[in-house]
Amino acid sequence: MGTRYIPSPALLTDLYQLTMAYGYWKVGMAEHRAVFHLFFRKNPFKGGYAIAAGLSAAVSLLERWQYSSEDLAYLAGLTGNDGKPLFEQGFLDYLRDTPLGIDVDALPEGTAAFPHQPLMRLSGPLIQCQLLETPLLTILNFQTLIATKSSRICRAAAGESVLEFGLRRAQGVDGGLSASRAAYIGGCNATSNVLAGKLYDIPVKGTHAHSWVMAFDTERAAFEAYASSMPNNCVFLVDTYDTVEGVRTAVEVGTALRERGYEMVGIRLDSGDLAALSQAARTILDEGGFPDAAIVASDSLDEHRIAELKSRGSCITVWGVGTNLATAKDQPALGGVYKLAAIAAPGAPWAYRIKLSEHPIKVSNPGIQQIRRYTDDDGRFIGDQIFEVDQGADHTLESLAHPGSTTEIPASARSTDLLEPIYRAGEKVWEAPSIHAIRARAAEQLSLLPPEVVAGKADYPVGLSPALSALKAALMAAARRS
Amino acid sequence: MGTRYIPSPALLTDLYQLTMAYGYWKVGMAEHRAVFHLFFRKNPFKGGYAIAAGLSAAVSLLERWQYSSEDLAYLAGLTGNDGKPLFEQGFLDYLRDTPLGIDVDALPEGTAAFPHQPLMRLSGPLIQCQLLETPLLTILNFQTLIATKSSRICRAAAGESVLEFGLRRAQGVDGGLSASRAAYIGGCNATSNVLAGKLYDIPVKGTHAHSWVMAFDTERAAFEAYASSMPNNCVFLVDTYDTVEGVRTAVEVGTALRERGYEMVGIRLDSGDLAALSQAARTILDEGGFPDAAIVASDSLDEHRIAELKSRGSCITVWGVGTNLATAKDQPALGGVYKLAAIAAPGAPWAYRIKLSEHPIKVSNPGIQQIRRYTDDDGRFIGDQIFEVDQGADHTLESLAHPGSTTEIPASARSTDLLEPIYRAGEKVWEAPSIHAIRARAAEQLSLLPPEVVAGKADYPVGLSPALSALKAALMAAARRS
Repeated sequence: MGTRYIPSPALLTDLYQLTMAYGYWKVGMAEHRAVFHLFFRKNPFKGGYAIAAGLSAAVSLLERWQYSSEDLAYLAGLTGNDGKPLFEQGFLDYLRDTPLGIDVDALPEGTAAFPHQPLMRLSGPLIQCQLLETPLLTILNFQTLIATKSSRICRAAAGESVLEFGLRRAQGVDGGLSASRAAYIGGCNATSNVLAGKLYDIPVKGTHAHSWVMAFDTERAAFEAYASSMPNNCVFLVDTYDTVEGVRTAVEVGTALRERGYEMVGIRLDSGDLAALSQAARTILDEGGFPDAAIVASDSLDEHRIAELKSRGSCITVWGVGTNLATAKDQPALGGVYKLAAIAAPGAPWAYRIKLSEHPIKVSNPGIQQIRRYTDDDGRFIGDQIFEVDQGADHTLESLAHPGSTTEIPASARSTDLLEPIYRAGEKVWEAPSIHAIRARAAEQLSLLPPEVVAGKADYPVGLSPALSALKAALMAAARRS
Repeated sequence: MGTRYIPSPALLTDLYQLTMAYGYWKVGMAEHRAVFHLFFRKNPFKGGYAIAAGLSAAVSLLERWQYSSEDLAYLAGLTGNDGKPLFEQGFLDYLRDTPLGIDVDALPEGTAAFPHQPLMRLSGPLIQCQLLETPLLTILNFQTLIATKSSRICRAAAGESVLEFGLRRAQGVDGGLSASRAAYIGGCNATSNVLAGKLYDIPVKGTHAHSWVMAFDTERAAFEAYASSMPNNCVFLVDTYDTVEGVRTAVEVGTALRERGYEMVGIRLDSGDLAALSQAARTILDEGGFPDAAIVASDSLDEHRIAELKSRGSCITVWGVGTNLATAKDQPALGGVYKLAAIAAPGAPWAYRIKLSEHPIKVSNPGIQQIRRYTDDDGRFIGDQIFEVDQGADHTLESLAHPGSTTEIPASARSTDLLEPIYRAGEKVWEAPSIHAIRARAAEQLSLLPPEVVAGKADYPVGLSPALSALKAALMAAARRS
């Protein structure tokens, strides 16, 4: 559902966004404009890249972002430490009466993204930019996290099918639905989640569980009953009692099925030594006349486990991944942040802003940012520059991670600016691509990145333009003097 | 939102539940009854207990569980490996026309729960029990996980306030909303999540972020502006530039505020050495005339970090926890499972079922189970028995984890049976308690458990009744013979 079915989407935020909005309104800053960027500081999973996802859900939130009279009544009832209301009625009227007025630019879903690059830029009324911080982070952080995890898992599967089975252990209903969507973008071939299939046009897959086998007196009776009811969807789960015996039974039932004109799809392993069992299963299937039968495996799989099973010569052909994908178990949150980069009173020019930190890499970048991606003649990615739109881009990337280090982009390089217009003055100026196009984009992006970056063995070159770097340095120096 | 706003709640399941349901229908088992239990096998976070949560959301799913014509059209379009439909129209008509007919019994939310105990028992039409497996797991797994995490964090805070700030890094919209609800049940005092506050009647808290300070020319101007607009809600975030200087500025602005008749609530630290900074802040606040001002701290907190800060003499009085709570970062999924325990053809007696495993502790328990909790005269918990309702309970607990080991319950012990009726033949026979009552129950349960169990230093005694243990052994022996 992403955000299409959230009741009161405008209340999906942290209270401090509303108290700050109220403060801006009270002190006469309601007409101030601001620029915020949403970005992360570290690639997830100690990897070399992330896959941007979640924009469609963010847009569906923005399309429905308004305060109902019930929402406003709730806010009117909130009180401070003196028991009196937090908010004046005039502010609540302002919330009710002020339409969305922001500009939004964003990375298209499926784009390879790197630390410090804006996934999204908001520009417009300070109050609205502030109120939207929390839900945009919620949506983009999670879907980007899962699309990236899925991409890693699918790379480990090296072209073999990956099925997403995570719903039962997902973090809530939307955790499951959004994870299914992002997993498909990252490269999964299908999901077990029927509602995600319906809502997002993702292929769905599924056959039977242990409970099916347990509901019959014998495994053979269970397989035969399944084959008789659903002859065109037979993947037999073979490990309820004895796995090798289960494969033999599957071959026998599959042989009878073939006589009826249907082909068994394959078998599924869900426990035990998956490498050894898949080899044994392959032999039995091949010798039984089923060389094309799939061997599906599931059981706490992730990219590391898949790589290990492959290194051990597994004969698995389809990988079912659940909890470790849908919750990104080894890193269940992307640490995306949302930082003020410029502010202006009505009629005044932009005043650029940075957030200081003891750690230089955590000092935020000022200005109105865009990302220019340089490519060679074959479209392969050379490096990205974060530049300030009024300053423009150039061909020298000043490293953020390694101050003083630069990368020179050849003058002959081609380039694309990655942030695309999504909203202008509160009006949507963008049409969502299909999820299939997004998934194809993610796959293409990986193919255009340096392989050592994809493998997490080298950093992709991302730098500031020299002009933006100088602007940032000047702001840092000024902050230290003050 | 829990599940109140899910579109097509009946499709929120794994496809294999529908293919199995179809299979049961096709082979003439639509009238079979079954019993399933939902339980986990290990306490989360290497702890001594879990806090059951999610029942209200599960019930709201059940209340809305029906197939719309759009849902059925989607299912009619699914195809098998021959390109032909997976499902016959007669089955889809059956889904549309068959009302919910199950019995549900469940642990009340806020109850201390332990491995192998049913959090929920479903009994009724095999097909419906099967279809409901996935969404019930999604809901109960996640909310139980977060309520437990919250309980652990609040115990570490030892009576001090804990605020839940997790929405921005939560796993999707419902990940955030359900986490806020479960965190409150587990003991948190409030959430930053405004929509969770409105939907679930949870107190909401929040003041301002770094961006507020950055929007003004100086920190002092920012604090003064905040105090002038919202004098009854002043917690100043003091670490945007220099933390100690920020506390001094807060004292000055707080002093001016007091002259206007308002009291500063406190200050907030969000980075750096929180123990040392909180001590420095306490001194400045005390000397400045604010001995009662709160010191709120946030920054990757969890139960371990809180304990460490306390051991270092921190002066923090309010703990803001975000990502590590809302995503249960160190264990982002509870491994709850749902196992068939009995099945019966129409008019036939129950046939009991177990799921075998190489690991004896993973062999599921058969029969229609109930949990009896034994208490002493003061209501303190002595131990729990999982028994089969037709066999009845007794006073000997046969350990599941340590076969052969038993715990004898004194004959004088009092007892309560924990699973409560929620549905009978598809009709809800239960009224949801208020979230405040659930939260109070969770706190009371912890106070009645042996302290060493709460601390994770001893296992709480949970065992099977000797009769149920014998039934299970007989079924295991029969399975091995077959």
